[in-house]
Amino acid sequence: MERKATRPRHPTVVEIGRARFGADPFPVIAGPCAVESAEQIVAVAKAVKEAGGVMLRGGCYKSNTTPYGFRGLGREGVKLLAAAGADVGLPVATQVLRAEDAEDAADQVDAIEVGSGSMQDFELLRVLGKLGKPVMLRRGASATLDEWLWSAEYVLAEGNDNVILVERGVRTFGGLEADMLDITAVPQLKELTHLPIVVDPSHAAGVVQRVQPLALAAQGVGADGVIIEVHPNPAAAKTVGPQLDLDSFVALMTALGIHRLRTTIDQIDRQIVRLLSSRQDLALEIGRVKAEQGLPIYIPDRESELLAIIEEEAIRAGLDAGHVRALFQLVLAESRRLQQLLRSR
Amino acid sequence: MERKATRPRHPTVVEIGRARFGADPFPVIAGPCAVESAEQIVAVAKAVKEAGGVMLRGGCYKSNTTPYGFRGLGREGVKLLAAAGADVGLPVATQVLRAEDAEDAADQVDAIEVGSGSMQDFELLRVLGKLGKPVMLRRGASATLDEWLWSAEYVLAEGNDNVILVERGVRTFGGLEADMLDITAVPQLKELTHLPIVVDPSHAAGVVQRVQPLALAAQGVGADGVIIEVHPNPAAAKTVGPQLDLDSFVALMTALGIHRLRTTIDQIDRQIVRLLSSRQDLALEIGRVKAEQGLPIYIPDRESELLAIIEEEAIRAGLDAGHVRALFQLVLAESRRLQQLLRSR
Amino acid sequence: MERKATRPRHPTVVEIGRARFGADPFPVIAGPCAVESAEQIVAVAKAVKEAGGVMLRGGCYKSNTTPYGFRGLGREGVKLLAAAGADVGLPVATQVLRAEDAEDAADQVDAIEVGSGSMQDFELLRVLGKLGKPVMLRRGASATLDEWLWSAEYVLAEGNDNVILVERGVRTFGGLEADMLDITAVPQLKELTHLPIVVDPSHAAGVVQRVQPLALAAQGVGADGVIIEVHPNPAAAKTVGPQLDLDSFVALMTALGIHRLRTTIDQIDRQIVRLLSSRQDLALEIGRVKAEQGLPIYIPDRESELLAIIEEEAIRAGLDAGHVRALFQLVLAESRRLQQLLRSR
Amino acid sequence: MERKATRPRHPTVVEIGRARFGADPFPVIAGPCAVESAEQIVAVAKAVKEAGGVMLRGGCYKSNTTPYGFRGLGREGVKLLAAAGADVGLPVATQVLRAEDAEDAADQVDAIEVGSGSMQDFELLRVLGKLGKPVMLRRGASATLDEWLWSAEYVLAEGNDNVILVERGVRTFGGLEADMLDITAVPQLKELTHLPIVVDPSHAAGVVQRVQPLALAAQGVGADGVIIEVHPNPAAAKTVGPQLDLDSFVALMTALGIHRLRTTIDQIDRQIVRLLSSRQDLALEIGRVKAEQGLPIYIPDRESELLAIIEEEAIRAGLDAGHVRALFQLVLAESRRLQQLLRSR
Repeated sequence: MERKATRPRHPTVVEIGRARFGADPFPVIAGPCAVESAEQIVAVAKAVKEAGGVMLRGGCYKSNTTPYGFRGLGREGVKLLAAAGADVGLPVATQVLRAEDAEDAADQVDAIEVGSGSMQDFELLRVLGKLGKPVMLRRGASATLDEWLWSAEYVLAEGNDNVILVERGVRTFGGLEADMLDITAVPQLKELTHLPIVVDPSHAAGVVQRVQPLALAAQGVGADGVIIEVHPNPAAAKTVGPQLDLDSFVALMTALGIHRLRTTIDQIDRQIVRLLSSRQDLALEIGRVKAEQGLPIYIPDRESELLAIIEEEAIRAGLDAGHVRALFQLVLAESRRLQQLLRSR
Repeated sequence: MERKATRPRHPTVVEIGRARFGADPFPVIAGPCAVESAEQIVAVAKAVKEAGGVMLRGGCYKSNTTPYGFRGLGREGVKLLAAAGADVGLPVATQVLRAEDAEDAADQVDAIEVGSGSMQDFELLRVLGKLGKPVMLRRGASATLDEWLWSAEYVLAEGNDNVILVERGVRTFGGLEADMLDITAVPQLKELTHLPIVVDPSHAAGVVQRVQPLALAAQGVGADGVIIEVHPNPAAAKTVGPQLDLDSFVALMTALGIHRLRTTIDQIDRQIVRLLSSRQDLALEIGRVKAEQGLPIYIPDRESELLAIIEEEAIRAGLDAGHVRALFQLVLAESRRLQQLLRSR
Repeated sequence: MERKATRPRHPTVVEIGRARFGADPFPVIAGPCAVESAEQIVAVAKAVKEAGGVMLRGGCYKSNTTPYGFRGLGREGVKLLAAAGADVGLPVATQVLRAEDAEDAADQVDAIEVGSGSMQDFELLRVLGKLGKPVMLRRGASATLDEWLWSAEYVLAEGNDNVILVERGVRTFGGLEADMLDITAVPQLKELTHLPIVVDPSHAAGVVQRVQPLALAAQGVGADGVIIEVHPNPAAAKTVGPQLDLDSFVALMTALGIHRLRTTIDQIDRQIVRLLSSRQDLALEIGRVKAEQGLPIYIPDRESELLAIIEEEAIRAGLDAGHVRALFQLVLAESRRLQQLLRSR
Repeated sequence: MERKATRPRHPTVVEIGRARFGADPFPVIAGPCAVESAEQIVAVAKAVKEAGGVMLRGGCYKSNTTPYGFRGLGREGVKLLAAAGADVGLPVATQVLRAEDAEDAADQVDAIEVGSGSMQDFELLRVLGKLGKPVMLRRGASATLDEWLWSAEYVLAEGNDNVILVERGVRTFGGLEADMLDITAVPQLKELTHLPIVVDPSHAAGVVQRVQPLALAAQGVGADGVIIEVHPNPAAAKTVGPQLDLDSFVALMTALGIHRLRTTIDQIDRQIVRLLSSRQDLALEIGRVKAEQGLPIYIPDRESELLAIIEEEAIRAGLDAGHVRALFQLVLAESRRLQQLLRSR
């Protein structure tokens, strides 16, 4: 039986919204430990979007050591999270503990998180495999890399390839203040699997001031992104565990070299590439028609006219007309080359 | 909020069938890793009963690292297990992974096992708390004693006090051949909690020949019992992991000093004690009536007659008449003392 | 290169004084964490001897986490320890940290202890190998069994086979109150090596009341003995760490089933066996002489005379004359058989 | 007793040669696991110097798990190392296992390394404290941060403040292929101690291709430098464990953004700053004389003359005269300000 998680192949790219885990330089997912209210999650959503984050996450079903503690807002929380994400234009993710909650949440969120304690809840993993939504699979507190990849296999075995591995620290002798971030797991996994791996430093950090150094270490080691816990007022949070306030989050994003503008440029570039691709598809379609009707590929008047329109557009947009003209001459030449190719077959 | 699991009180005694965990000297639970067939589970049931075991256990819902492996017989397995237990007169226990399976199994088994990987499946624990059946709660592979007791608290918080803690080894640097049995956890837990603790050495043993030494260590350290995996033909088992064959199991029971006869004597003693208790309740009831009616407590003719009947009975049963007469004179004297006490109030 | 520590062979028996580690049922070594004064070590020595311990140990060179703490009495401590041992007739052991202290101590003690922190002090191990004294080699706090056996190899490689392995707990996530006793190491080592293994539960116990359960676990699991820390007044000790007071030590010895009388009987039996062996050697020598001179093997008068002397002796000693006569008739018959055998070659 | 290692104070800067650990951006120490020959260590020394490394290290006294393996070249190795360092103008460091070797090596090397296995060899630490040479103190494989800092305390307690902490990974369940790099220890130690901390990723990496990601993680997390094992021909090395070849080392240095030129610029800048400081001291001295003699602070002719000289010098050096003039006008203005300040007291 070939294992899907560890077979040799090109790195898997998991696309969620506009983010592409495994391909983008260092996407940042952020949000509160727990969704607590509409105000709270909206405030975080805006801050995450503004600072250049690519996905909003928030806990709705909390796994709590004590039976007497806060258990999250449940379905109501999922709705608030989804609304906040829609509001600012970010995809959202939340953690589920039970298969039935996964089914319920799947309609409203863009990715499902699996917590450390559920890494070997194989029933849940099977259901997530069937649902097909991207899965963010945290490592168990004492799971080996091999066990972790076997858990990913449960999702992949159901035909769902969209698995992101999340390193969040493991339990060692190093005191129980916090688990130990296994930074070496990142290059080790790069050798073992094609799945993307992101780092969640909050738990291992233990305290707020260690989140930024660990996030920078994750960037240095070559992780495919990071998950940061952010809260508008950490002191008043309903859960313990370190969450950055909004200013610290912006400072972290700056330290990571991630700015909204840069992210936006990346997104525009990607749109340009997609439009070029659509344009080319259409040009090939036209090529086929020309071929059927015996029309010539190069029609000089048509190209002149087209370039004139583009130049005009460029000037209106404040761009250098000559620069844009040169670009489009390349595009047109490529079109002709492909049409020629089509005909010679 | 007072924690129920750790509050000071007398040791909790969990009664399952005739076994009393937390009171009996060293009860042994045994059975196969997985229920595989009627033949297999019946063979094991007979051997366990014969050798002096107090409970039969067998896995029906298996938690398997790989999605491509054996998952147990499920509901069919539970039926086979329950039938085998009924056949030989032993209570039965099985592990469940999902709340719905717990509800289903609860009608057929005497105790529910929670696996290491589910120790923090808080939804499941809550459901088990509500079901009220005794729960055998295995320690998570990297759980602290405190986290373990918090998981027990989930069951206790729902009003179910019948929790047995099961130490089965924890994950350390000591190689991954097997987890490390934390034998010190037993005396530590005796200080921390009133719940009984049994040891499951199979996983930590790794290989068959280490099961017996570890079981003897568990007995030495003062555990409230042990769980032993037994299979009629371990080489043909559908699961990996060391299981004793029937002969090795008998040898282990002998090494532990557990013989069927001794166990039977214990059970008879207990029945005698219960009958004495019932007898005393009745005597007190009679005492009250006598008091109301102003009748004397000591009626010599009645006692002589009673002793005569008992002597006759003793002779028929092959017992020394004088010995039994002496015993019952003590019983009667105690009855009179209590009746006197009642009247003097 | 064949490894000496792990090659297949009969179990190594390390003899220190009258104790034989690897052969005696469950020898107990005891003494204070640190030798503090003549009074203290003499008091412990008497108690250890009286309760049936086979060796006295006490720390003279202490390895202290802090540079500002008690470092032991050094050479003066070794002298006090040796004197106390001589006083009560027990062999003594102490730990050294430096090769030069080993050389110095070797003249005065019967065995050298190597602490957990020195398990990989290979220079020290080499020196101990050359000195030839029995070595009690503690496991490093995070050493695998293989690394531990490699450290033993350093001693064996120098021609010193007298190595006793001492399991004292390893470092895991289980909190830093104490290291975790790896009880499974005992049966694992029995499979891997011929060297005896004793358990030192004090450090893993963390507190006094857990020492006895762990010692009983060590006995149950099949260890070749145990090391117990004992102090006449633990509250006033110069080192931290749990030490039993003298009464608790006696209670522990009783729980282990070790009584001075039983130990003495063992020792007498052993002396009888040795005398029988010497007697047989002499009888064979006589046999050879008889053979050379053509004398008969059986000389009835000689045997009658001999038995008469023995009977007289038995009566004086308060023994049943017939019983002793019967015993010696067996001895004499065996002698004749061997002499016959000698002649028939 | 105040602990020296953890008392609040400005970060300690350990100066070795031109490198300043705790102040320089990210100094890189490099060298072979073991010094094997003059050719080998000279080749590495040149490569380290050329690529921008600040210190050469090489093992001469090797701590080897097996008694049958390579133990290093000893004193001969130290000589070769010192000669190679002198040759290229780099300070050198080597590890010692015994106090006597430390005393011997101290004359020839610029810093002494203490291995993981010797972190609690308190005798050695005391001797190193007395010797006064900078100490690079590796963390024990299962040492807590507190224990590590206590070991540093042994050196500090003897009056030697020049301690660099070296994180090299700790032992966890994560398989024994390699220890786990505790990257979080870096920010934790920044909170706990004023001592610099560098990361040695080789051991935790396990294989060569993980060394670079871990070094980048160390840079990201804010470590005070890194130690890299480099060998001209790793396949032929006398020790196991991953060592980079020379090309990979250059690639790593480039990835870290460390180029020889940049390092040189840093050194020149530092010289400029020192000269400016000396200049200012002299200017203040002159200021005092002027004050005593009642001379004016500003003497226009003197400044014009001075600037003329400087401009001439700048032109000869190929610098823009106006730019340099502007710089020095600032310097002179600052001098006047300080002299004024002096007088107004």
